[in-house]
Amino acid sequence: MSLYAGVDLGGTSMIAVIADRKGKVLGSSDCVTDRSLDADGIIDQIAEQVIEAAKKADIKLNRLEGVGIGAPGAVDPERGIVVRAPNLRWADIPLSSHLGKRLKQEVVLGNDVQVAILGEHAFGSARKTSRAVGIWVGTGIGGGWIIDGKLDRGFRGAAGEIGHICLDENGPECSCGRRGCAEAFSSRTSMERDVRAAHDEGRKTCVFDLMEERQKTRMTSSVIERALEKKDAVMIEVVARAQHYLGLLAGSLVNAMDPEIVVLGGGVASRLKESFVAPIRETARSRFLRPDPSGQIRIEHSTLGDYSGALGACALARNATS
Amino acid sequence: MSLYAGVDLGGTSMIAVIADRKGKVLGSSDCVTDRSLDADGIIDQIAEQVIEAAKKADIKLNRLEGVGIGAPGAVDPERGIVVRAPNLRWADIPLSSHLGKRLKQEVVLGNDVQVAILGEHAFGSARKTSRAVGIWVGTGIGGGWIIDGKLDRGFRGAAGEIGHICLDENGPECSCGRRGCAEAFSSRTSMERDVRAAHDEGRKTCVFDLMEERQKTRMTSSVIERALEKKDAVMIEVVARAQHYLGLLAGSLVNAMDPEIVVLGGGVASRLKESFVAPIRETARSRFLRPDPSGQIRIEHSTLGDYSGALGACALARNATS
Repeated sequence: MSLYAGVDLGGTSMIAVIADRKGKVLGSSDCVTDRSLDADGIIDQIAEQVIEAAKKADIKLNRLEGVGIGAPGAVDPERGIVVRAPNLRWADIPLSSHLGKRLKQEVVLGNDVQVAILGEHAFGSARKTSRAVGIWVGTGIGGGWIIDGKLDRGFRGAAGEIGHICLDENGPECSCGRRGCAEAFSSRTSMERDVRAAHDEGRKTCVFDLMEERQKTRMTSSVIERALEKKDAVMIEVVARAQHYLGLLAGSLVNAMDPEIVVLGGGVASRLKESFVAPIRETARSRFLRPDPSGQIRIEHSTLGDYSGALGACALARNATS
Repeated sequence: MSLYAGVDLGGTSMIAVIADRKGKVLGSSDCVTDRSLDADGIIDQIAEQVIEAAKKADIKLNRLEGVGIGAPGAVDPERGIVVRAPNLRWADIPLSSHLGKRLKQEVVLGNDVQVAILGEHAFGSARKTSRAVGIWVGTGIGGGWIIDGKLDRGFRGAAGEIGHICLDENGPECSCGRRGCAEAFSSRTSMERDVRAAHDEGRKTCVFDLMEERQKTRMTSSVIERALEKKDAVMIEVVARAQHYLGLLAGSLVNAMDPEIVVLGGGVASRLKESFVAPIRETARSRFLRPDPSGQIRIEHSTLGDYSGALGACALARNATS
């Protein structure tokens, strides 16, 4: 049995899994990313998670066929270098070689969102499709696509920055400094901004109590989920607005890319599932240029949940070694 | 020397060329598409243009290695069928076989805009690039892309409908019935709508005199060019607005697709060239997520002019037979 280790490295947390070539998880380990550490310290953390996951899977590291990792930001897959990862305050970190030395394994590197979509294509919602577009909603909005069964990286490895498709140039300010990007409407950060604005206008919301309960300084996916369960009026409105713009984005992407499936991923989509996707699908379909009466074009949430990225990293390693 | 015939079939006019495998045109012939004819009559017209172009090139039809044709609308390249071409009022026309019988040649079929981009990639502005996005401005706005040197057709053959990326859902009504698609801001039809609106508001413009002079019922590219030469204030404003939205579109496409070059094509871009593209480039660059200080990502007009489509059809035939 061929086994792989896959790591999903994020600015907030990281997770490592051991899986077989069909994506069956045999062991996993996760921890909070300690951003007080330098790059070497964080790479130590990563190695520990892989070792811990292998322990849980009851296998030795030298049993692995390969190791893959998805990192946030701009990466150079050929050289195994994280070129720029603002979340980690990393620039030009040779992650593949440094992690490889610790694990005594070749390490294949990819961009976190592209890798997560690869995971959904290999093992999740986009399985058995040849053409899939992913929209990942988190701190920002990332994306990527599978074309003819393969991840399409772009000329500079930057394909899939769909969070910076302009949906209304007079829209809210974006993290990139421009206005009206999709990310400025629909990321978790933008939703938090809108909740805070409503609160500042004197509207009642339970969001800040929920954050305090959970000792969170940010409006996490779990806070969003709980606030919706409590039928918080502000939260309901804010999520609906984000969904509306995600629908416009998904519709535009279907017209431009002609995929078989659009997968919505990231924390919010993984938690809220169909209730998150349904309004997005409806808005997107209202923008379809080509009629699709039989629903041939699917718009779905990711099915691997928190494992999309780590299993995608396993697929990355599998594809590199097979 | 391998020779190919290529046809660019439009709702208004058609053109056929004979070219060698490097895209050198040896003969060409064009005519107005006679929309009073049925499909068979129009296919006769097409065959006549190919025969006439071959005559001008001084070659016999049986010297051709292949024949390609780009048709407007939805096509099924495998079966050689024009599925739906509203401009021609065609539905399910087996163009490849019917034209093939007349010419005693295999005929390869593609969508007109996709084929034009293929032409620019094979012989024009996008030559020697592996990744190019085309934005074609005409009656509507079409598009397409080359990925890893190959035309990417999409799941249903519909990839590249970038004219229906939403740029502002509260924008003007689009030909597709929705609001704020790129096409609704920047197609030639939309520019004409805006000129008429300004005229209706009592503003002075020479556009209608120019149309009358040329006996045109529509605001053609040549009318636009002449009005700009005459420094018509309304035309200047209307074109600037179209350029602005094309810039937003191009910027979004660079962020999403990560191409090496964006090619602006179609009648208006072919005529106005750099003066059309310069403001589009500026707006697009202002939306680039990834800094590009060295101007690595190019935004250019098509260089094959009226031959983009016909030469692309030659490239289509060449690729199919080689």
